[in-house]
Amino acid sequence: MEKVTLNVKGMTCGHCEKAVRTALEELDGVSKVLVHLKEGKVDVEFEGGKVSNNQMKEAIEEQGYDVV
Amino acid sequence: MEKVTLNVKGMTCGHCEKAVRTALEELDGVSKVLVHLKEGKVDVEFEGGKVSNNQMKEAIEEQGYDVV
Repeated sequence: MEKVTLNVKGMTCGHCEKAVRTALEELDGVSKVLVHLKEGKVDVEFEGGKVSNNQMKEAIEEQGYDVV
Repeated sequence: MEKVTLNVKGMTCGHCEKAVRTALEELDGVSKVLVHLKEGKVDVEFEGGKVSNNQMKEAIEEQGYDVV
């Protein structure tokens, strides 16, 4: 299991938190997501062989947020 | 048809806008909802005999926002 912390811009409320969390959780290989709303950070635990950082980035961006 | 502009605190993003709009549109008697996100204002057209200002206020507060 690998861990990464993504910096996500634009999350302002609980709905945003849920949108980002759900988008990541739906990716095959992602096992745990923890959103720090105020800090704009998202901790993800995942299987490196199943999902890439780029896939996570794209999933977040599809929800309308920037990964910086 | 009557019109009212509600002052709603706490809406920060498009999800918030949608939550408030949907909650109001689901009320019987509400015919039109226009959310001004940045201004924190919501214009509502409604039938006064079918729905009250208080019901609108409660519907918004159930979504986690304050009507001031």
